[in-house]
Amino acid sequence: MHRYRSHTCAALRKSDVGSNVRISGWVHRVRDHGGVLFIDLRDHYGITQVVADPDSPAFKIAETVRGEWVIRIDGLVKARTEDTVNKAMATGEIELYAQEIEILSAAKELPLPVFGEPDYPEDVRLKYRFLDLRRETLHKNIVKRTQIISAMRREMGNIGFTEYSTPILTASSPEGARDFLVPSRIHPGTFYALPQAPQLYKQLLMVAGFDRYFQIAPCFRDEDPRADRLPGEFYQLDLEMSFVTQEDVWNATGPLMTKVFEEFAEGKPVTKEWPRIPYDEAIRKYGSDKPDLRNPIVMEAVTEHFAGSGFKVFANMIASNPKVQVWAIPAKTGGSRAFCDRMNAWAQSQGQPGLGYIFWRKEGEKLEGAGPLAKNIGEERTDAIRTQLGLDDGDACFFVAGEPDKFYKFAGEARNRAGDELNLIDRDRFELCWIVDFPFFEWNEDEKKVDFAHNPFSMPQGGLEALQNQDPLTIKAFQYDAVCNGFEIASGSIRNQSPELMVQAFEKVGLSQADVEDRFGGLYRAFQYGAPPHGGAAFGIDRIVMLLAGAKNLREISLFPMNQQAQDLLMGAPSSATPAQLRELAIRPIPPVNKD
Amino acid sequence: MHRYRSHTCAALRKSDVGSNVRISGWVHRVRDHGGVLFIDLRDHYGITQVVADPDSPAFKIAETVRGEWVIRIDGLVKARTEDTVNKAMATGEIELYAQEIEILSAAKELPLPVFGEPDYPEDVRLKYRFLDLRRETLHKNIVKRTQIISAMRREMGNIGFTEYSTPILTASSPEGARDFLVPSRIHPGTFYALPQAPQLYKQLLMVAGFDRYFQIAPCFRDEDPRADRLPGEFYQLDLEMSFVTQEDVWNATGPLMTKVFEEFAEGKPVTKEWPRIPYDEAIRKYGSDKPDLRNPIVMEAVTEHFAGSGFKVFANMIASNPKVQVWAIPAKTGGSRAFCDRMNAWAQSQGQPGLGYIFWRKEGEKLEGAGPLAKNIGEERTDAIRTQLGLDDGDACFFVAGEPDKFYKFAGEARNRAGDELNLIDRDRFELCWIVDFPFFEWNEDEKKVDFAHNPFSMPQGGLEALQNQDPLTIKAFQYDAVCNGFEIASGSIRNQSPELMVQAFEKVGLSQADVEDRFGGLYRAFQYGAPPHGGAAFGIDRIVMLLAGAKNLREISLFPMNQQAQDLLMGAPSSATPAQLRELAIRPIPPVNKD
Repeated sequence: MHRYRSHTCAALRKSDVGSNVRISGWVHRVRDHGGVLFIDLRDHYGITQVVADPDSPAFKIAETVRGEWVIRIDGLVKARTEDTVNKAMATGEIELYAQEIEILSAAKELPLPVFGEPDYPEDVRLKYRFLDLRRETLHKNIVKRTQIISAMRREMGNIGFTEYSTPILTASSPEGARDFLVPSRIHPGTFYALPQAPQLYKQLLMVAGFDRYFQIAPCFRDEDPRADRLPGEFYQLDLEMSFVTQEDVWNATGPLMTKVFEEFAEGKPVTKEWPRIPYDEAIRKYGSDKPDLRNPIVMEAVTEHFAGSGFKVFANMIASNPKVQVWAIPAKTGGSRAFCDRMNAWAQSQGQPGLGYIFWRKEGEKLEGAGPLAKNIGEERTDAIRTQLGLDDGDACFFVAGEPDKFYKFAGEARNRAGDELNLIDRDRFELCWIVDFPFFEWNEDEKKVDFAHNPFSMPQGGLEALQNQDPLTIKAFQYDAVCNGFEIASGSIRNQSPELMVQAFEKVGLSQADVEDRFGGLYRAFQYGAPPHGGAAFGIDRIVMLLAGAKNLREISLFPMNQQAQDLLMGAPSSATPAQLRELAIRPIPPVNKD
Repeated sequence: MHRYRSHTCAALRKSDVGSNVRISGWVHRVRDHGGVLFIDLRDHYGITQVVADPDSPAFKIAETVRGEWVIRIDGLVKARTEDTVNKAMATGEIELYAQEIEILSAAKELPLPVFGEPDYPEDVRLKYRFLDLRRETLHKNIVKRTQIISAMRREMGNIGFTEYSTPILTASSPEGARDFLVPSRIHPGTFYALPQAPQLYKQLLMVAGFDRYFQIAPCFRDEDPRADRLPGEFYQLDLEMSFVTQEDVWNATGPLMTKVFEEFAEGKPVTKEWPRIPYDEAIRKYGSDKPDLRNPIVMEAVTEHFAGSGFKVFANMIASNPKVQVWAIPAKTGGSRAFCDRMNAWAQSQGQPGLGYIFWRKEGEKLEGAGPLAKNIGEERTDAIRTQLGLDDGDACFFVAGEPDKFYKFAGEARNRAGDELNLIDRDRFELCWIVDFPFFEWNEDEKKVDFAHNPFSMPQGGLEALQNQDPLTIKAFQYDAVCNGFEIASGSIRNQSPELMVQAFEKVGLSQADVEDRFGGLYRAFQYGAPPHGGAAFGIDRIVMLLAGAKNLREISLFPMNQQAQDLLMGAPSSATPAQLRELAIRPIPPVNKD
């Protein structure tokens, strides 16, 4: 017989009854039922119930074992009596009658319980991550994570993509976030950087003549801790394709992601045909470029109904500034003064002056618009608004006025809140879409100049012609995001692979050709030697796993995460370097300045 | 029609004749045959021959294109005449008659030719890696690399392993080689380290209750440049299993590797049943723990034939020191004075006093041992040696004497050289084996103390009993290497998961329990809370790809390698950090000391 096990703890079935077997695993729990000991033995695969009664030669040792000890058990498989069969367990029809127990590894008193998974302070969980990971929920999440990534790999392979690994010790890239630096020992005073993303390398791969690249890519950004991102490293499903338009990228990756989602959605519906929503439309309808499409609320402009109306606040704003609009946030089933007042109070807590509203109710036979706004604008306008938005008895509508640039974010949050509070959101589904036609440039109010809105490597729509003749702020990019349930899960673009266009685009934001060469030398040089049209995307794996696992926190779907202070409490990182290490690297830590 | 292509450059066949198609790619070369232009258009998938004659509307633009320009061609598929069919090309039965050509990206004069792949200085190749990678051999090697890794993943999955990613920003580990350090911005004066291998994490995964882990793992060692290793990062197929003996690791991974090798060996034979050769035996027979088993030479001790013989040099050594042995290196077909003298001269060039030999030749009917040694020891001993080694007319034998510890490496090199020079090695095969039972400790002559021979985390054979009662230098470890054609391709062991055993093992090399806690705190702590018996291995992916691609240099199978001075010439890494970066990281480079 094998030294440790003839079966895993998930393997034994009724058909094994009468066999002598060997299993090994962790003591999940021990129960003493009137002198008979029941040990639930657990391994990666499952749990088997072991019985030792005082007649068993293993009883003496069984009495000594405690939770999380690792033991080997030889025993006889017995059928459970009908009333003790556990249908919820794969091994629930049998139990193992222990004949011999060997203690493979005892455990000290546990700093963190495994059985039952009660809430526990996060620092203890992270320091004893090897115990935390034994807990059922986290164990399952991690296994699910590996399965999702494996499914992504499989599907990418199936549609003709090849996985390439790009370097991790590379050059600092001026891509927005802060780089982690790695001092070079051989070239003192210089540094490698860890890649924020394999962006430059994947584009170089296309220029090098490889056609459909992907990578489950570790990415590194030295950003300040934030609740929705792990410090240090994160993973992307990074991909790039040559000789494609943006439709090719959407047609390749959308159906693939739908398939991956469906595989792990546990029956929840997943969008099959992803809507392609232009950025401007997303802002107008949802007040966000990451709309949660499970929320049925669609905002509409109702400016005309307030122009010249008796609600002077809005009417005067509209009259004095042609940019001013009034947006309506229709809230079906929200038609009570209590709810409308709650929304108004919430808006004030967000620093807004308030949130105007109308709600409709039946007064006898008559449908009446209630609230101060309705009174001010009168019955006819109130009813015109109701008709435009398709509202009825028991519904409400909220109004935001001003320059849309300045209020759309708040309007989007109000839409989210109304949908959430009114339970209009069907949480058991995955709504996916593409947000497309992002603006190429944006106005930097602080520096009073044009900046890249997102990715400087993207291709502007209209090309050279647009760069030369169009108001930069109206130029769109071949740039897109994928969004799921209100979270951005991917970002991508068709790249600007023309050196001439690249220089012109950078000139608009005040950078010269020399700046381009200095910052993006490798790529700029490459584009001069025959660069194919190319584009791609990067999907955020951690976010996707979190959505599919229904987890609330990135640390619940990560194996060995750092804490929010960017420390690995298990391994003790970061830590001091030895003087010898620092000498070899020719660097010296600067002692902190005493700030008192 | 698609904006860039209806077909790849490898897709068109005779059945497409008469179709109007669109292809895009790089101009591989242009030939002018009496006014008719032939353009070989290349993409990732293959090459298509395009024809433009002066009647074609595309002729004018075809005349302008040059090597490595990226173009789109619309044309009519035509059958080639029988005498121009090229059977070596997938598209060799057709050609594309160009009707429209669009230049997608022109190329400046090339710093490095792509077509024909002449030798070129390595610095130019690395700086223009995006051009170098377009060359057929390198392109094929990289594709093969991705396929090999993909096959490893597939096969690991098939035998029940799951891929987990372990952290890349982690703690410095005292594992032998030098760490790359990453300064922490949030905790000034402290550093992360990049993992030399995921060793600690994979063991923690086992303690955390996951059962069969693998990872295509990036590893980082800041070692000095050496011809047979790339600076910076390299990849391992890293794996670990719980509740296993070393046989389980061999039985899982050996057949898997055979399968992967066979898939890419292009018909060359691959060892199916890997021999398991104890370390001591490998040293004795091959003078190496990485024996090239394609070389049929097996060394044998022939001490007795020299003891008390007329060859006083050896006889006196044997008489004065019981540790002295004489090893024979039998060299079939090496029986000429010219060859033996060449070997002798080579030995002297290696700093040896010389290499004694006997060779056998027919003198009339009689088989005679020739050379000074034969004369000194006489006919009877000479023939006894010949009989022991199974040698005959035309064969030779070389002799090395002394303490085997001190000469075995040289003997192994002499074995390699003889096999090589005499062409005894069948180069067209992959001979794989396990080297097992490595010594646990070794003698450190400099410090006059016992050290770990290899991996301090390995389980000593005989356990506590051996550690307490046995001469440490005779203790073996459950530690093994996989070897292919003279190269180590993997290393692994069953781990020591007992805290008590760990402390005792470290005591032998002069380290206290406090040292263990200090250096391996995470793992040592974990072992106290129920650690399963576990073991694994790590296969060197770069080396395996190199063997299977028949490449001579790691840079020929790596995508974006650094040069031997650990510089990325394409991206310009490492480079200076900005003062702002250094300030944020609270480090200061130490200016070099002027050493004159």
